[in-house]
Amino acid sequence: MTRLFNDPADFADEMVDGFVAANQSRVRKVHGGVARSTTSPEGTVALVVGGGSGHYPAFGGLVGHGLAAGAAMGNLFASPSAQQVTAVAKASEHGGGVLLSYGNYAGDVLNFDAAARALADSGIEVRTVRVTDDVASAPTSEAHKRRGIAGDLCVFKVAGAAAERGDDLDTVTAIATRANDRTRSFGVAFSGCSLPGADEPLFTVPEGRMAIGMGIHGERGIAEADVPTADGLADLFVDKLLTELPDGVDAHAGQRVVPILNGLGSVKYEELFVVFNAVQRKLTAAGVVVVEPEVGELVTSFDMAGVSLTLFWLDDELEQLWAAPADSPAYRKGGAVPQEQVAPETLAADEQAPVTPGTEASQASAARVAAAITAIRVTIDDHADELGRIDAVAGDGDHGIGMQRGSTAADRAAQDAAARGAGAGSVLAIAGDAWSDKAGGTSGAIWGAALEALGRVLGDDQRPSAATVAQAVHAAVEAVLAFGAVPGDKTMVDAIVPFDQVLTDRVAAGDDLVSAWSAASAAATAAADATADLLPKMGRARTHGEDAVGTPDAGAVSFALITAAVLSTVSVPA
Amino acid sequence: MTRLFNDPADFADEMVDGFVAANQSRVRKVHGGVARSTTSPEGTVALVVGGGSGHYPAFGGLVGHGLAAGAAMGNLFASPSAQQVTAVAKASEHGGGVLLSYGNYAGDVLNFDAAARALADSGIEVRTVRVTDDVASAPTSEAHKRRGIAGDLCVFKVAGAAAERGDDLDTVTAIATRANDRTRSFGVAFSGCSLPGADEPLFTVPEGRMAIGMGIHGERGIAEADVPTADGLADLFVDKLLTELPDGVDAHAGQRVVPILNGLGSVKYEELFVVFNAVQRKLTAAGVVVVEPEVGELVTSFDMAGVSLTLFWLDDELEQLWAAPADSPAYRKGGAVPQEQVAPETLAADEQAPVTPGTEASQASAARVAAAITAIRVTIDDHADELGRIDAVAGDGDHGIGMQRGSTAADRAAQDAAARGAGAGSVLAIAGDAWSDKAGGTSGAIWGAALEALGRVLGDDQRPSAATVAQAVHAAVEAVLAFGAVPGDKTMVDAIVPFDQVLTDRVAAGDDLVSAWSAASAAATAAADATADLLPKMGRARTHGEDAVGTPDAGAVSFALITAAVLSTVSVPA
Repeated sequence: MTRLFNDPADFADEMVDGFVAANQSRVRKVHGGVARSTTSPEGTVALVVGGGSGHYPAFGGLVGHGLAAGAAMGNLFASPSAQQVTAVAKASEHGGGVLLSYGNYAGDVLNFDAAARALADSGIEVRTVRVTDDVASAPTSEAHKRRGIAGDLCVFKVAGAAAERGDDLDTVTAIATRANDRTRSFGVAFSGCSLPGADEPLFTVPEGRMAIGMGIHGERGIAEADVPTADGLADLFVDKLLTELPDGVDAHAGQRVVPILNGLGSVKYEELFVVFNAVQRKLTAAGVVVVEPEVGELVTSFDMAGVSLTLFWLDDELEQLWAAPADSPAYRKGGAVPQEQVAPETLAADEQAPVTPGTEASQASAARVAAAITAIRVTIDDHADELGRIDAVAGDGDHGIGMQRGSTAADRAAQDAAARGAGAGSVLAIAGDAWSDKAGGTSGAIWGAALEALGRVLGDDQRPSAATVAQAVHAAVEAVLAFGAVPGDKTMVDAIVPFDQVLTDRVAAGDDLVSAWSAASAAATAAADATADLLPKMGRARTHGEDAVGTPDAGAVSFALITAAVLSTVSVPA
Repeated sequence: MTRLFNDPADFADEMVDGFVAANQSRVRKVHGGVARSTTSPEGTVALVVGGGSGHYPAFGGLVGHGLAAGAAMGNLFASPSAQQVTAVAKASEHGGGVLLSYGNYAGDVLNFDAAARALADSGIEVRTVRVTDDVASAPTSEAHKRRGIAGDLCVFKVAGAAAERGDDLDTVTAIATRANDRTRSFGVAFSGCSLPGADEPLFTVPEGRMAIGMGIHGERGIAEADVPTADGLADLFVDKLLTELPDGVDAHAGQRVVPILNGLGSVKYEELFVVFNAVQRKLTAAGVVVVEPEVGELVTSFDMAGVSLTLFWLDDELEQLWAAPADSPAYRKGGAVPQEQVAPETLAADEQAPVTPGTEASQASAARVAAAITAIRVTIDDHADELGRIDAVAGDGDHGIGMQRGSTAADRAAQDAAARGAGAGSVLAIAGDAWSDKAGGTSGAIWGAALEALGRVLGDDQRPSAATVAQAVHAAVEAVLAFGAVPGDKTMVDAIVPFDQVLTDRVAAGDDLVSAWSAASAAATAAADATADLLPKMGRARTHGEDAVGTPDAGAVSFALITAAVLSTVSVPA
């Protein structure tokens, strides 16, 4: 929700003032909005855009060289007045006439049309191109009634570039019209936004559901469905837009297209990139060629959670104009220094580290080690959600995912190394390296070091005895302690120290490995449970100390789970 | 919350793939993250940054000419592994050594330090600069323990620019260190974020409250307070940071400073600009000179609602490096074509339209018209919240604010015109123009046209009779009807048509103006209430038709309120 404002009635004015203060090298404030603060050649066309506020970077963020000459900035979600549009156009024009372009909404049409009449009355040549890209807002037969959403950017960008290269008003208008004809968008929303000072969101979507085709002001969509996966959303978008091809576009013939994946506010970049990964894959599979895409926030609605995909079907001239330089507060193209691309490399295939072949006895042990690591992966997969939940209480909730990534990579590496004849020690070293590499974070580094220490003691020569296994575990514990935690800090150390002690004691007392391991694992489980009583001392967890009392440490719990899971592999005769 | 993902364990990998697909002209995927896809001169220093994912544009978004040479991209909120950092550094370096720079978090220190050792072992010169800008995370006496937040950008930007101009490794390191020493940040959070696949947010802040000094992973802050106004937040930020001046910086001596107002995810641009407006004002008042600020999302935490202010205290060299060109996916400086600024103009003072002086009789009427417009402003102010709430049911919730802006502007213009001797007709025309100009949207245009039509009939000559007033109202109604709505559409037309009829009939029947107006106003109120039973037909409201049944139309209600409010001015003898 919108939280930061002073008097809600002053919000739009203060927003414009702050925007101008932050972007003085590109824009200056004029009555009703902003115009470029940079000079433009006399006689060129001025592209004037605009609409309600609340959609940044639309519309003021798109004023600058190669894009708009000015933007009329209305109140929140309300069209600028005819006076505002007129004043911005007069301040922006430089002798070549004015192209008014904006999304097709009733209030905007009313006020921009009135402004067009006022401008014409004062002797300024004016044309208008309304953006109508949203396929959900009207059927194909009434495409001119569709509203404008992120497709605004396509139309503004090529019109701005055409104006910048000196095209006359009729040519710029024709290009903008063609760009609009070749632009289609489709969007979904997960939750609404609230206006400054409002107690409630402007509209809502039930949790876990999405409104398909909902507009950027909450205009009702065409259907509602469960929120799909990222890939599922990409399917929905691409499939729909491939049935909405503009006249004359054949999507299956190497046709070039600009995709714009637009976030409406609180769907964030990381999610957009995951969706775009699938969009790019699907478009490529459909035979179309993706050109200079945009993934980010281009037309927003405050913090509305929503996404749209726009496809801008290029022709040669439109592609040239799309690629032309632009330099506005929120949209820039063309670096200051032309960059040379590195030669396309053959991606170095993941080099497999050469393995030290083990003796026959050690290869037998290696098979058990590899089985143990599979057991680790399986138990972590089974408990990943639970570990994440526990970790979120005191840490950052990533323990489940981190352990999952680490154990998955370790398992793959271990099976591969064992298959290539590595001894037990080498299998553990290779698995440890893969674990720490893929898991990252502190726990990844710790588990990597632990497996590596285990492997160092087991070696590649013999089938280890119970005593050797106990020594190896002790070495692994030492490696973990080297990271600095001590018992009582509420970390995995609280579980591994008793595990080590019981295992060493029982093996020394003559127990077989299976019963010694079983007893040690029980001790680790009890110790992990007991961490619930502790106050965390380390790292980020420290900052949430009190909350964490009552919940065990995720690292201690995952360690205890792992000791239990590998028991079956300890007990299988070689 | 994070909604769009496939398998949460694959999120970070798919995110990197999508990011690279969207930005191929600048970055290429390498093991562990990304490196530039553009060439760099042999022998220059490679700045390698990195950290956990979930903070876009940190860190991959900052790779490109003039900024980082590569970025290690860890899992969500988890440090990249030492192997990842090492691999990215090896892929990014081009003979001049590597500067590792990253925010100061335990996991990152662990893994980057291990990578530094591995790189040194393989013969690559390495230095490290940790960013420690967050003043909330440790006292001044332990400034080296502070964590890094949006100040990352300051350090990376100047280090990248120094590397690009060919400085050697020790020089780049010294510059990065100096930048970090001169950078301070302070932040607040209003709500937490949730990781992909998590059912609950990682942390929460009570509604209406903010955590002061909370970290970007939800690390506990130093205090909690009610959410302030935008100006109040600017005060909090600037006051705190002016007490945290780096050694040798005197904030009151024309010292130059870069402010960075950073949104964490769902606090949006419009809000940030409103806050920045106050930040800029306060800094200027404190005597410091604001240089090339940044307002936007530079270091985020998914959709966390939070804001931070960073102050980067410049010296001559740092300013030069800050201003140098950069061209990364998320951060670009320096346009493709150098732009010339327009000459600073004396802002044209708002030209006062010359008023037609009214006759004495008309000036007396003008005073009553001006009083009526004041009464309109007062009643709209009193009911603005209620009108917004009603409008949110069927429209976009802006009716209250729009009417408020319009009536406030109209009142100011009317008082001014009346004071300058305008007749009643001119006062109404001027007020109408101000109303439609400032309110914008459809309702602004309608009210502007209505006042203008009223004024046209009343003229500037005589004191109008009851019959003239009724004729004027009828003309205003005609002007409103010209916008296209008809009775039954659930618009203000449903209230103004009965108002017009009753007024005309009662005046024709010989009633005095006060009782006729009073009866007409009662009819308008009843008609406005009755719009609750109607299904809206017009504009955006149409899309929420069913929801709107049971709630009256906001435009009809505000019209009825206005007719009641001006009754007292109708009844005061001239």
